[in-house]
Amino acid sequence: MTINLKNFLNPQAKMSKMGEFQELKHIDGLEVSSISADLYNNGRDDLSLFYFKDGANYAAAYTSSSIISESINWNKKNSKKNVKALVVNTKNANTFTGNPGFLALTEVGKLLIESLNNREAISGNKNHKNIKIKELMFASTGVIGEKFPVEKIKKNVQNLVENLRTVQNKLIWLKSASAIMTTDTRPKAAYAEFRLGNKVVKISGIAKGSGMIAPNLATMLSFIFTDADISSNILKKILKKVLSTTFNAITVDSDTSTNDSVVIFSTKKVKLGNLTSISSPTIIKFEEALRTVCLDLAKQVVVDGEGAKKFITVKIVNSKSVSAAKKIAFSIANSPLIKTAVGGEDPNWGRIVMGIGKSCEKIDLKKLTIKLGEFIIAEKGKISESYDENKLKEYMKWDSIFIEVNLNLGKDKFECYTCDFTHDYININTDYRN
Amino acid sequence: MTINLKNFLNPQAKMSKMGEFQELKHIDGLEVSSISADLYNNGRDDLSLFYFKDGANYAAAYTSSSIISESINWNKKNSKKNVKALVVNTKNANTFTGNPGFLALTEVGKLLIESLNNREAISGNKNHKNIKIKELMFASTGVIGEKFPVEKIKKNVQNLVENLRTVQNKLIWLKSASAIMTTDTRPKAAYAEFRLGNKVVKISGIAKGSGMIAPNLATMLSFIFTDADISSNILKKILKKVLSTTFNAITVDSDTSTNDSVVIFSTKKVKLGNLTSISSPTIIKFEEALRTVCLDLAKQVVVDGEGAKKFITVKIVNSKSVSAAKKIAFSIANSPLIKTAVGGEDPNWGRIVMGIGKSCEKIDLKKLTIKLGEFIIAEKGKISESYDENKLKEYMKWDSIFIEVNLNLGKDKFECYTCDFTHDYININTDYRN
Repeated sequence: MTINLKNFLNPQAKMSKMGEFQELKHIDGLEVSSISADLYNNGRDDLSLFYFKDGANYAAAYTSSSIISESINWNKKNSKKNVKALVVNTKNANTFTGNPGFLALTEVGKLLIESLNNREAISGNKNHKNIKIKELMFASTGVIGEKFPVEKIKKNVQNLVENLRTVQNKLIWLKSASAIMTTDTRPKAAYAEFRLGNKVVKISGIAKGSGMIAPNLATMLSFIFTDADISSNILKKILKKVLSTTFNAITVDSDTSTNDSVVIFSTKKVKLGNLTSISSPTIIKFEEALRTVCLDLAKQVVVDGEGAKKFITVKIVNSKSVSAAKKIAFSIANSPLIKTAVGGEDPNWGRIVMGIGKSCEKIDLKKLTIKLGEFIIAEKGKISESYDENKLKEYMKWDSIFIEVNLNLGKDKFECYTCDFTHDYININTDYRN
Repeated sequence: MTINLKNFLNPQAKMSKMGEFQELKHIDGLEVSSISADLYNNGRDDLSLFYFKDGANYAAAYTSSSIISESINWNKKNSKKNVKALVVNTKNANTFTGNPGFLALTEVGKLLIESLNNREAISGNKNHKNIKIKELMFASTGVIGEKFPVEKIKKNVQNLVENLRTVQNKLIWLKSASAIMTTDTRPKAAYAEFRLGNKVVKISGIAKGSGMIAPNLATMLSFIFTDADISSNILKKILKKVLSTTFNAITVDSDTSTNDSVVIFSTKKVKLGNLTSISSPTIIKFEEALRTVCLDLAKQVVVDGEGAKKFITVKIVNSKSVSAAKKIAFSIANSPLIKTAVGGEDPNWGRIVMGIGKSCEKIDLKKLTIKLGEFIIAEKGKISESYDENKLKEYMKWDSIFIEVNLNLGKDKFECYTCDFTHDYININTDYRN
């Protein structure tokens, strides 16, 4: 999807910058490595290591699917206070692989901690405490149900550790963000920072996927790194708050992967004092910055959605509750009929009416206002007197389409993001193995 | 969608007969008329009348959408013990038309009862009691939000009454079933009968639509007529039971129309004694016959789904509850990824795993078995040892695809029906107004 400047009048105009890979900054306390374990048989990077020499606080959110990857299962069973390293592989989702898929991670993990402990010993790091296997985390993305390529990965663990880079520049981040891709068409990254006195807090995040982006490939992964010293407990609470309006506010095709994971790591290098409340001014600043990063990454996932040519924002305002607004927003955003109409540049607002109705949320037709961009389409349960089909047709040619539904029933709101539904979606999802 | 005989080994082989229009029989006590009010400006039939001279018991089920057609709204506000006539128009959904849409029906209704009362007077029918306006029912299907064409319809009411046919043969039913179509590619009809002693009970049903079958057009309508004398109260209970496994077990694109209606009418001509319980043997026989008609019509709607080339049955067995089975079945049947894979003839079973998981229902992976047709794909949480990709690829070429998920958790089950997702769906829904 290429965003052009037709959007300049549009609330989503900033999307036009998304074609570029953002410049992420170094996070002190993090080392990264991406190599090829030849899982694709073509030499592309497919195995990544994110290493925290001095450990990291963390918070993780996983898919709500009732069938989950053995990698997520492994993380859940090996709870830890502190993370020492994250290993990410592509090509294989490690899902529906049974106990062998679980045991494979333990085998890889044993080799990895041996290799990392050796490295610290050789470098003469006297503060180093031997890493425990449960201090590792895993993430996998790729085909569901195929045997996990444990031998290929084990063979490359030493190489992975040898390639660790202690400093990340733009190119290193680009390499990392690319190494976790499956059939994404571009790497996804976002950065935010804020100042507190003379200290700068940095947040660097990468992501891959777009719902279930490709045949057999099922995953949305995002890893976010900050140097701010924030406890795992607080990170967890902030992440939960932030997710609801960012990664949990996007949809490409309504299909939920078995591998979705969003994890934030804190290297604890920038000391911010004793932060115990999520309502402290510092945490609120951090939450804002984290939301910026997550929302940016989430929107990039939608922009890179399967076959997507247009970005769609669905905003529900003045609802009785956030949950009602959310239900209506997703009812619209997941409607194939609305998404194909947007793809066809057709201001087919009757379908938006259908989308509102099928949510089964209570509506007062006499109070309902529907807008496309800045154009009022319908008000008080009827087509608007200012309705102008020609102007709307012109608007529908834009790359970023804004749908607003004002329920006039209360004060809550919810905004979600999706893309249009095109022939390319069908191509990507039918023609893969033929 | 053309069903060919490749399906002969398939549980859905009977679908191959669906290309033909079924021979419906005359229902005593019913008269029908279909004419053109020129709503499409091309002379096609678009206005229908179903008249019950001696009244009819009835039961109706309407869309669960929170935005409903003014025609449904009118029916709900004019409750009646007895229905005298049903008027159906196409082209305009009478949805989002506000109070003018509601008042239009009252205007049409006044003319209609005047015309019908005159007809009975002229024919010397001394048993005739003047029809009350609230004894009418309306159904509309077509574009949402456009002005209701009340003048064109009023101008044709007299013509509609003059064209009433007292006996229905196959051609009359074909004309009726065609007159309620919007962009359906074929009329849909189903028939069942059963014997009780020397009496024959007949059920003739017609339907139109396939979810939201076409641009701006939103409706699934079905009208079913029986001569069995069954009270409205009992009809309501039976209809509710039958719908859950028939019309409420289909999905084309997960989009719910604002106009969906299923109505059954009893002309009371075949006396069956005093039937007060839904568990009486006669009612159970009737329920079976009604289920046959409803399931047949519901499947015809799916077969004629937008762009559909394949019919898909999703059967969940041995679940803990019907509701869990239903949730998983629809999670699979509404997944664009699974529907595009079937369209692409790709036995991409990882997506079925995804579809089960995203339902969020509790699963025991170790007990899970997945079948495609007669082929076991996965068992005990892993790919089956008998898995044969080549055989599966051959199977996926069939017109009717059967997906079975055995949860091995209980004794309940649910089966639902959908179609594949193809380029034609995108064509139908994007290119209409361009």
